[in-house]
Amino acid sequence: MAAKPSIPKGTRDFSPVEMAKRNYIFNTIRDVYHLYGFQQIETPSMEMLSTLMGKYGEEGDKLLFKIQNSGDYFKGITDEELLSRDAIRLSSKFCEKGLRYDLTVPFARYVVMHRDEISFPFKRYQIQPVWRADRPQKGRYREFYQCDADIVGTDSLFNEVELLQIVDEVFARFGIRVCLKVNNRKILSGIAEIIGESDKIGDITVAIDKLDKIGLENVNKELSNKGISAEAITKLQPIIQLNGSSSEKLETLKEILLASEIGMKGIEESEFIIASLQSLNLMNEIELDLTLARGLNYYTGAIFEVKALDVQIGSITGGGRYDNLTGVFGLSGVSGVGISFGADRIFDVLNQLDLYPKDAVNGTQVLFVNFGDKEATYCLNILLKVRAAGIRAELFPDTSKVKKQMSYAHNKNIPFVAIVGENEMKENKVMLKNMESGEQNLICIEELITILASC
Amino acid sequence: MAAKPSIPKGTRDFSPVEMAKRNYIFNTIRDVYHLYGFQQIETPSMEMLSTLMGKYGEEGDKLLFKIQNSGDYFKGITDEELLSRDAIRLSSKFCEKGLRYDLTVPFARYVVMHRDEISFPFKRYQIQPVWRADRPQKGRYREFYQCDADIVGTDSLFNEVELLQIVDEVFARFGIRVCLKVNNRKILSGIAEIIGESDKIGDITVAIDKLDKIGLENVNKELSNKGISAEAITKLQPIIQLNGSSSEKLETLKEILLASEIGMKGIEESEFIIASLQSLNLMNEIELDLTLARGLNYYTGAIFEVKALDVQIGSITGGGRYDNLTGVFGLSGVSGVGISFGADRIFDVLNQLDLYPKDAVNGTQVLFVNFGDKEATYCLNILLKVRAAGIRAELFPDTSKVKKQMSYAHNKNIPFVAIVGENEMKENKVMLKNMESGEQNLICIEELITILASC
Repeated sequence: MAAKPSIPKGTRDFSPVEMAKRNYIFNTIRDVYHLYGFQQIETPSMEMLSTLMGKYGEEGDKLLFKIQNSGDYFKGITDEELLSRDAIRLSSKFCEKGLRYDLTVPFARYVVMHRDEISFPFKRYQIQPVWRADRPQKGRYREFYQCDADIVGTDSLFNEVELLQIVDEVFARFGIRVCLKVNNRKILSGIAEIIGESDKIGDITVAIDKLDKIGLENVNKELSNKGISAEAITKLQPIIQLNGSSSEKLETLKEILLASEIGMKGIEESEFIIASLQSLNLMNEIELDLTLARGLNYYTGAIFEVKALDVQIGSITGGGRYDNLTGVFGLSGVSGVGISFGADRIFDVLNQLDLYPKDAVNGTQVLFVNFGDKEATYCLNILLKVRAAGIRAELFPDTSKVKKQMSYAHNKNIPFVAIVGENEMKENKVMLKNMESGEQNLICIEELITILASC
Repeated sequence: MAAKPSIPKGTRDFSPVEMAKRNYIFNTIRDVYHLYGFQQIETPSMEMLSTLMGKYGEEGDKLLFKIQNSGDYFKGITDEELLSRDAIRLSSKFCEKGLRYDLTVPFARYVVMHRDEISFPFKRYQIQPVWRADRPQKGRYREFYQCDADIVGTDSLFNEVELLQIVDEVFARFGIRVCLKVNNRKILSGIAEIIGESDKIGDITVAIDKLDKIGLENVNKELSNKGISAEAITKLQPIIQLNGSSSEKLETLKEILLASEIGMKGIEESEFIIASLQSLNLMNEIELDLTLARGLNYYTGAIFEVKALDVQIGSITGGGRYDNLTGVFGLSGVSGVGISFGADRIFDVLNQLDLYPKDAVNGTQVLFVNFGDKEATYCLNILLKVRAAGIRAELFPDTSKVKKQMSYAHNKNIPFVAIVGENEMKENKVMLKNMESGEQNLICIEELITILASC
């Protein structure tokens, strides 16, 4: 049995260098989450299908990876049912478990199951993979990590402010210049209310979003094609052509949405969030963007999205407020707000802009060459001291040709090689070679430690 | 739909406190792996069933979690096959993917697929969950983490030495006193050869292991019951009664196994490993234990196992050398040696011995009380400075009763609360309350930072 192995399509192996980069991303996000008092939880990879089904729409249900029941999975299925070959309906008989599709539904389930031990408001973060049976394509995987932070059990807008501070801080640490786009579901509801087209708000935001590309005339044509009345389109004109700073946009919206209670509430919320953030001197620009309409059925207040300024790529982080996260599991009245960093896209952006810090790799700092058992055994004692000083060090395990050992150090990007032969042992010293400059120095162990601890 | 949610049996949610403890375990192991030059990889949670099946024995195949094919999973199955209800045979038609069962087989698959980019010897570690459809019971889960380190592409015994140094260092860092037990598959083969019962080595080690509990007479009775000849049992006596230090045991074995080439090779290897480690002054005891026979079909040289001295629990770490890890995937001649830390059992041991360091939790260091929007907004600016100093800090988001805010700090184990009201704002100061002592001090921001940075 020597078939050439492969991995499932849409999944990936991560090499040491890729892992180091990914860990740099996760650790940066994690550190900032900790600075703001978020605590980590983890949930099982498998959830009951009863927990997952019906939460992501009909399309989402189809994209769930379902796990075949153990043992006799035919039990309880009649011959007629089997022969019907109704794949969708029989899934729930063959399978009672599925892989999680996102971190939000498992989090909602967690909050409901653990509500008696949780001290609200609950600030949790979660960094785990999720699985979707999507058609794989460039940048879209069947297994990928999400990095979510949510606060539940509070409707204070200070949460929105702090989450956007987190986003600002994380991208500042990465060195990625971004624009933080904010919107508010209540403003969108207000617009729909004012123009009398409450059920068309999705079409409207999509059309407005195309203004730059297709021009005002075509936007209006598209709105009309979508069945929006001429009167409504007329009323929409000042909104489509809204421009200026965020404050200017909000001033204009105040006039337009004056008659909509919910619209005015959305404006008030956005004013608070944007003004608070402006007083905190964010590193990145913040912008009110009415075309932002992500998860429209889901979010009820603020909506966030982050765009990288120096790379052409979709949204790299998003989030917003939802008012009834846990209602579907029988616990109502739990308002929350959250963000989710797109680790895979951030990975690509950091690569494209070559922004990974050199020391993110946590690689070996020095390789000890192996000249034979006697020398190697001698080196083990030196290694003891070197590692006790926190220096990452290796002994080449085999007595291979020096050239091979050097090329190992080179391939693994190890910056220093320590050479200990007969002479060095006699003098109780080490020949330290700098792999970049080629320079060699005969030094004692204490010097070796000083040099390596400082790089 | 408000059904009470649950999670699949054998799986777990991890709360913030549990996660902090688990991260402490993983980070400790990871830090030591890095010190020895190991680099992390990750493989997909799902592997092709063709990669997994047949690698863990018939029982293992049954314990694989299989993932139902997406779309029409009935395709290619005849009516007759369906009506046969042959759950085992049809699994491979309904499912082409499964969840990984351990980290070793995916690693072997990784080495084969990436052999051209790997610089051998390859020192990799991997910390990821694995899944087994075992019957759940106390301490046995269907989803659990493994923390493996392996070196492949080298048969030098220095690898065994370094892996045992790693084990010693990790448990020293945890503060868990352990015994490092070592054995060698070649010694066991030698014994079987000498007594002429090569196929009964499993039964022999099981029986020897019971000496302390049931006494010599009963051990011999059990050996006889297992079909081992009287002559063989006689030859076994000095081995069953082997005692003394590891060196003494090896000296005795040398006499007994003199005629077995493979046995003598095993003794020589064990002597090298034990002598090297003794010269390195390990923190924990190392002991040659002939009853160690884990993964007998799998290991070909050294075998390791770690026992906690102060807690009654099974092996908490294990490993050994294997000579043909990747042969099953068509790449032969890759020798390797590895260890695997049992994170779940280590978690239990640390809990029982109360050995978690206090600062492992990474919790919030100071909570700012929220007296209203004006005060809270003022606090945001203080928080900016506090967090810039690396201090983990929160603002309570809502203007709740102070008692509720205090009890939040208490429940979350936050050691300090900062109170900023009208007076404090006027004086540009903060009232800092120590939650343990109850002491309160009116201090300036710089003092606050100094105090918090030092705890």
